[in-house]
Amino acid sequence: MQDEPEVAVLRLGHRPGRDERTTTHVGLTARALGADRVVLEDVASGREETVVDITDRFGGPFDVEVTDSPLGTVRGWDGRVVHLTMYGLPVQDVEGEIREAHHDEPLLVVVGAEKVPFEVYERADWNVGVTSQPHSEIAALAVFLDRLFDGRELDREWADADQVVVPQESGKRVEDAREHRRES
Amino acid sequence: MQDEPEVAVLRLGHRPGRDERTTTHVGLTARALGADRVVLEDVASGREETVVDITDRFGGPFDVEVTDSPLGTVRGWDGRVVHLTMYGLPVQDVEGEIREAHHDEPLLVVVGAEKVPFEVYERADWNVGVTSQPHSEIAALAVFLDRLFDGRELDREWADADQVVVPQESGKRVEDAREHRRES
Repeated sequence: MQDEPEVAVLRLGHRPGRDERTTTHVGLTARALGADRVVLEDVASGREETVVDITDRFGGPFDVEVTDSPLGTVRGWDGRVVHLTMYGLPVQDVEGEIREAHHDEPLLVVVGAEKVPFEVYERADWNVGVTSQPHSEIAALAVFLDRLFDGRELDREWADADQVVVPQESGKRVEDAREHRRES
Repeated sequence: MQDEPEVAVLRLGHRPGRDERTTTHVGLTARALGADRVVLEDVASGREETVVDITDRFGGPFDVEVTDSPLGTVRGWDGRVVHLTMYGLPVQDVEGEIREAHHDEPLLVVVGAEKVPFEVYERADWNVGVTSQPHSEIAALAVFLDRLFDGRELDREWADADQVVVPQESGKRVEDAREHRRES
């Protein structure tokens, strides 16, 4: 988020066909919950457009990057690396340490679709489990980011949006972003 | 979770083919993050097996139910209803009230894949947004459950598991559940 060291999310192991929607969910969750950037493998480049389109309509800043060397992104990362895996240490035990480190350094958060190369486990500063149960890398990413930012991401401001959703008790209300600014 | 009023998750609007993996993620996230049951529409019944299989291997209690009338589940619910939607009130503003209500009453959490019938907005006691941004019903469910249970779900115990993952700084360790109990 603005005025903080960068948080990037790297999506590993995308399987074309099978993982299209889940990779889109990873990208949109990264954006909505406070990350600054998502990095996709070239086989997942078809998902770039959806995330860019949502950013155009609902605001940013948020970047989508496509790489042909995701392990290169991990190896060359100038900061700390978190790998979300059900085999890692409990998030509730290590989140304080990670939050502390992120005050000073950029954070790369790696989420895999299926098998993640052993090198990622070794290079990660923290292998982190959101429970030790098999569930969803999207869910794990969401809980991790909400805890990393301590809920601040829910109040973040969006720049250059075309449209704004105005929270309602019931029903839907979407306003033109310029009109919305004028009224509020 | 045990010794608390039930929390059930109802998955609405499953589109066969398109939503298979995301519906599985909803079911597994519900299980891993403290819900007691997931209710699937009959068109999503193919996802039942995966969730039941994970529960057989990694423990429960957790139930999967298939219904041909998901709106009937909402109409007939004996307790409070939460509908997760980007158009709803900010989770950070209403979570306290919902947590309070759940001390005494079962909670039905409705998550949609795409368009949700207007009746759900009207029948919900709370329409809740995990941000007003488009992202992922899996991510929204995860953040909602983590906040509802205040992190307690991360420490829940699992009964009748065949295998147990033992958290590691690096690498993977899976033990036979009976051996695991004997050692600990």
